[in-house]
Formats: sequence, structure tokens, C-alpha cells
Amino acid sequence: MSSGYSIGIDIGGTTTKIGIFSRDGRLRFKAEIPTDKTESGIRILPNAARTAMSIMSAGKISLEDVVGAGIGVPGPVRNDGTVNRCVNLGWGVIDIEGTMAKLMHMPVKAANDANLAALGEAWMGAGRDSESLVMITLGTGVGGGIIEGQKILKGCEGAAGEIGHIIVNPGESEACSCGRHGCLEQYVSAKGIVRLAKKRMQCSDSILSGEQRLSAKKIYDAARLGDSLAKDVTDEAADYLGRAIANISDILNPEAVILGGGVSRAGEDLRAGVQKSFEKYVFHACKNTKILLAYLSNDAGIYGGARLALENAKSLA
Amino acid sequence: MSSGYSIGIDIGGTTTKIGIFSRDGRLRFKAEIPTDKTESGIRILPNAARTAMSIMSAGKISLEDVVGAGIGVPGPVRNDGTVNRCVNLGWGVIDIEGTMAKLMHMPVKAANDANLAALGEAWMGAGRDSESLVMITLGTGVGGGIIEGQKILKGCEGAAGEIGHIIVNPGESEACSCGRHGCLEQYVSAKGIVRLAKKRMQCSDSILSGEQRLSAKKIYDAARLGDSLAKDVTDEAADYLGRAIANISDILNPEAVILGGGVSRAGEDLRAGVQKSFEKYVFHACKNTKILLAYLSNDAGIYGGARLALENAKSLA
Repeated sequence: MSSGYSIGIDIGGTTTKIGIFSRDGRLRFKAEIPTDKTESGIRILPNAARTAMSIMSAGKISLEDVVGAGIGVPGPVRNDGTVNRCVNLGWGVIDIEGTMAKLMHMPVKAANDANLAALGEAWMGAGRDSESLVMITLGTGVGGGIIEGQKILKGCEGAAGEIGHIIVNPGESEACSCGRHGCLEQYVSAKGIVRLAKKRMQCSDSILSGEQRLSAKKIYDAARLGDSLAKDVTDEAADYLGRAIANISDILNPEAVILGGGVSRAGEDLRAGVQKSFEKYVFHACKNTKILLAYLSNDAGIYGGARLALENAKSLA
Repeated sequence: MSSGYSIGIDIGGTTTKIGIFSRDGRLRFKAEIPTDKTESGIRILPNAARTAMSIMSAGKISLEDVVGAGIGVPGPVRNDGTVNRCVNLGWGVIDIEGTMAKLMHMPVKAANDANLAALGEAWMGAGRDSESLVMITLGTGVGGGIIEGQKILKGCEGAAGEIGHIIVNPGESEACSCGRHGCLEQYVSAKGIVRLAKKRMQCSDSILSGEQRLSAKKIYDAARLGDSLAKDVTDEAADYLGRAIANISDILNPEAVILGGGVSRAGEDLRAGVQKSFEKYVFHACKNTKILLAYLSNDAGIYGGARLALENAKSLA
């Protein structure tokens, strides 16, 4: 048996992160490179593999010391390790696991990036004491992942956890990026929160009025300073998110729900508002679900990749 | 090794069903007795155990031929096999597994009745070809169960699958039996469908006007005959249910969603309406979930119990 390093790779639309972890979950070496999306993203996987190999060599880690790699991509991954289009990366159908295994000479497992971030938080982050959890990633969009007993619940086509696209307001007049109306993402993503503020700013004044580059962060900051428009916006977002989490808890009864992604940097201001809304909407039998802030920030995906690799090695042994 | 019979028991508020199954999933013997709720339901478990033993003896099945029993109760069952109040049965805290194991001299596992019905449909019913499924039981109330790889997803306190109490209309003015407003159960349970019809009958005429004992069945029958009020009601129920199933599919990406319970006897009229609404609301990556009618009717619970007993025997072996 090797000394048991594992490699986590997280391919994002802008950068690709690579981490090498010891078996006990410590991040030993890490790199971040641009994601080269030119020519239908043909260089994305080779670049990631080459970088992983060069970190290994710099860290004097040989192939025999590594049990395998886990890799996250922004799209649903089917059970055979292939993706069928990752729009953000320019990919068509790609056999990620097969391609990376050949490039890296080790077993590779692939998963959806939001699912992998959830696994990372379950392994070494905010969910490390929870048997079951749901992670909601509040970024430009909204993603999610469901973990039961340190395993990703993938769904039959690898599309479980599409929490950003549950319909929370069928009466919504504006369309979501997916073409439908009233998706959670329209209210609680970074973009969604800005949208809510812009709508209200057409009718009321705010210290944000005249702000050139409005962002979710600026809105939470203004709410903290007592701006009433900003407060109404963050309350509205918290109401939608708390209700969605209540419904998810009624369905899954998880031990914890973890809030991650850029918007979650609003911290306790966000969490406390969501908690209050959750308590208003949840069914009594499911009310003990804890709502927590993510802990691993942008590294959650590589932690999850490393954990997936360890699990895969166990199942191959 | 025994010849491998297993026993399924389903304790309902009115009757208790007991079935003895061969290992290949055939229901060999069956009984149905009243559920005696007097004196805080103290006789419910002894009556069920005694009846199971007497069927075994009539069928010339000895204790050695039986691998165990699985029992469903109307309430969340904790991971230690206890329930903390089953209001419908008059129970306080009860150790179901321990009590029944002593009475029946065999290993016993307990689960929530809606979860067990889902397991039954997954084993021998409409879901037998599906790796993952969600069952929704449309009865007086609305229950649910989630099955992954022929296993119940229980949640951390045994309360997963409380699908009847997800909030689908936060603006609802009438209260649900749980005290909150806008639960799915208020629109798609047998009682909920009657409620929707009564509301509309205050303003419009219908062949149902003057009907003394309105029921969901009569409303679906009237809709089939072309009554426009009844059609509006069944459309409204289908819209809520299809949207809830779309959201559940976005979260879990199951292979199938199975509609059971008394209301599901409306059959294809119900299923087709729900399917149409589902397609309107579901996220594209999760659109392949099949919506099916339950197959095992009132026996789903005992099938699920027998399956749970087999699984438990395997884990003990």
C-alpha cells in the first residue's frame, strides 16, 4: 500500500485548481492555473494533468505514493464518467475519467463541481461532524450537492443537487438564464441579489443609488449600515432561501445545510436571516437541521476531489 | 440458512396488515386486522405479532423458515428503532424493534409507513426497474419516501420524505393541519382536492353542486364527464403536484416518481395532468424522470416491510 496521497482537481470557467492531500485530509501542495477554453477546451485536461504531475515531482511524490485523483467539472457527470456538454468550458461529449486516467497514469473519478464542493465540506469542512448534509453554493449562479454518509448522491443522470433551479416563485415575470421563471437562482445568486436591488432602486432611494458597479457584497454592506432598501433586499433573498432550505429539509431531513460560494462571505448576516426564514417555513419533524456557513471557501472542490479519489481507491482495493 | 420467508407488517390508523413473503417477492399469506388504539395503543404490537405467528402456523412455516420482519408505522422512526409519538396510534415513546423482536423471536426493523410503501414499490411494484425513486402517497394526507439502490433514505431523524409539508404557496390564507400555510397536502391530498372544489363552488355551478359527500373520486369523475369546475380543480391540483415533483427532481434527479394512495386511483387522468405540469416546471437536466402510477395499492407497505427484513437479515449475516 502506498503512503496514500490523493489529488483533487477543480475545473472552473476561469481557473483550474489542483491540490495534493495527505490521507488525513491535509492540503499539502496546491496550484491554480488559468482554464484555457480556446479550441473547445481541448487543452483543459492536459494542462491540469501536467500541472498535477509537476507539483508531485516538486514535492518528491512518486506515482506509487498517490492512490488516485478526483476531478470536478461545471456540469452533470454521468455514471460512466463522461460529460455531455459543459457549456462554460466549450466541451461536447468528453470521457473525463478515461482521458485523465491515461494522462495521469492513475485511477480518476469525476463529479459535478458543486457536488464535489459538498463532499469536501463533508470531509474536512463545516460538515465534518454531520452524517448527511446539503450544500448550497451561492455564486454567480446557484449550485448544490447532497451528501449521505460521506458519499455524493448523484441521481440517475448525475444531475442531483440542481437546487438553483427549483421554482420558488411561479409568478415571476423575468426569465432565469435557463429560460424558465421563478428559479431560486433569480433571488439568491450574486446576480439575483443585484437584480432584486435594481428593481427596488427604480422606486426608492438608497445609499446604493448611483453606485456604478453594484454587487451582492455592497448590498450586504449597505444593509449592515442600516440602509433600508438594502435591508429589504437581503430580507427578500433570505426569505426565498430559507423557504427553499425548509422544503429541502422536509424532503431529505439532513443533519446540516451548508451555505457556500461568494455570497456566503456576507457571513452571519446572511446565515441568521436564512435561519429565521427556515424556522418559519419548516415542518416540525425536520426543524433540527443546522444551517452553517461553509468553511473551506474556494478550496472545497479540491478537498472533495481528493476525498472522492480515496473512496474510489478503497472500492478498487 | 432458512428457506427465507420474510414478514411485512403495516400499522395504519384503522387497520394493521400482515403479509408473509417468499424470498422472490411473492406474497404468500396475508391478514388484515383492526388497529386497537384503546389504552394508548398498548395492544397494537402484541396483536400484530400474534396474528403473524398464527398465519405462520396455519401456513406450516416455522420460525427457522423466517429471516425476520419489517414493520411500518405512521410517524418518523429514529435510527435506534424507536418512535417518539405516533399521534394517530396514541403512542408515546416506543421501542418498536425491541418490543417486536421479543414478541416474534426474530430480528425486526421498523420504518416510517410512507417510506416503507416506497421500498415496496421499488422492490416489486412500479419502481422495480428503477435504481432511484421517490414515491408520493396521496391519501387523506400526503406522505413520501425516497429510495436509492433499494434502500430507504431516512434522514438524520427518520423524517426524510415529508413531501406533504413542503410549502408550495406561501400566500395561502387557510392553515394546513400542521398549522403552517401553503403545504402541498392542502392542494393534492383527498381532503385538499375537496377543499379546492368547495372554494370554487361558492362562486360557480357544477354537476357537483348539491353533492352531499364530496370526495376526490367524485371530482375526478366529474372532470372526466366534462364538468368545468371539476376540471379546473383537477388542473389546479396537477399544477401544484407537477411543480413539486419538478422541484424534487431538480434536487434528487430520481429515475422515477411514483404516485400512490387513494387519490392515485384517478389513474391516467391524474398522471397525465401531473406530467404536463412537471414538464413545464422541471430543469432541463432533470427532465427524464418518469412519473408512474403505483402498482401495489394498499399492499405496498407490507411488501416494503418484507424487503426491509430481507435487507436486515443480509446485514446481520
